[in-house]
Amino acid sequence: MSRSPGRKQENHKISSELFVLTYGALVAQLCKDYEKDEDVNTCLDRMGYGIGVRLIDDFLAHSSVKKCRSYSETADMIAQVAFKMYLGVTPSVSCSSAAGNEFSLILDKNPLVEFVEELPAERASLCYCNLLCGVIRGALEMVHLAAEVTFLQDKLKGDAVTEIGITFLRKPEDRKHKR
Amino acid sequence: MSRSPGRKQENHKISSELFVLTYGALVAQLCKDYEKDEDVNTCLDRMGYGIGVRLIDDFLAHSSVKKCRSYSETADMIAQVAFKMYLGVTPSVSCSSAAGNEFSLILDKNPLVEFVEELPAERASLCYCNLLCGVIRGALEMVHLAAEVTFLQDKLKGDAVTEIGITFLRKPEDRKHKR
Repeated sequence: MSRSPGRKQENHKISSELFVLTYGALVAQLCKDYEKDEDVNTCLDRMGYGIGVRLIDDFLAHSSVKKCRSYSETADMIAQVAFKMYLGVTPSVSCSSAAGNEFSLILDKNPLVEFVEELPAERASLCYCNLLCGVIRGALEMVHLAAEVTFLQDKLKGDAVTEIGITFLRKPEDRKHKR
Repeated sequence: MSRSPGRKQENHKISSELFVLTYGALVAQLCKDYEKDEDVNTCLDRMGYGIGVRLIDDFLAHSSVKKCRSYSETADMIAQVAFKMYLGVTPSVSCSSAAGNEFSLILDKNPLVEFVEELPAERASLCYCNLLCGVIRGALEMVHLAAEVTFLQDKLKGDAVTEIGITFLRKPEDRKHKR
């Protein structure tokens, strides 16, 4: 991605709570706007995608990371650098496929739900943090990595941990070779 | 305000960009939801109020500030501790009334608009950052200070600086004494 040369490298470090509460207000607004949980989830994912597409530039400017040489390195980078930078937590990473293209980010602690007690009964299918999936998907796409990103487990729904699944999709050139 | 005794004092320090972009998504959603800028402004202020009411607890837990003895001290606290903590910037403060109850927070730099080029022509009356006014108003109310908080100038609208005006309102007991 190109960066405007004048782009300031200064980074504001802030406490997460105003962000976390603002995110809650966003989800609440979408729950007003859309009756179906699925529509809220889709909207959060789409918003996140738009954010990820823009955030990657900031991430590359501030993280000074090098190009990843494997899906595994990329997953580690997301967990150890990006999550740490933008959410203040570091999920653990595990590879969940023999093909080496499926990864899980396991969050023992999810700061985004810090002020959420539990989902209301009528919102049982809500993926409260679905914005994050979109952000990861959008950011990856900008570095030419297509991926599916979804919540596989969610503490808010009674699971033991919160787990985000990232499946890197075959690149178009790989597909071409297959034909 | 009471705090649950188990409330963790740990503070997540994060980069502001994901927050800033998420805030942008919230404002964009409200602009879809409401045709009139005034309605978006009101909604942002109301959301902010709800956030401020909850955020004050976190602020008191993490800032270890003492009780302010004057409006002037309170305004300084908002600028130097709260803005620094949650937005990573420190506005300058000036008192703008002889009565000593009106203050201006002057922001040379407003991180919340970092990714906003300018307001679209059809949204000329939008107070993009109006959530902040609500947050301040809500938080102050929880420490028994009634205030009006509004944007007086906004760089996004072509002003030289961004200025938030805080007018502390007479306490009910003051009014009673007057009668």
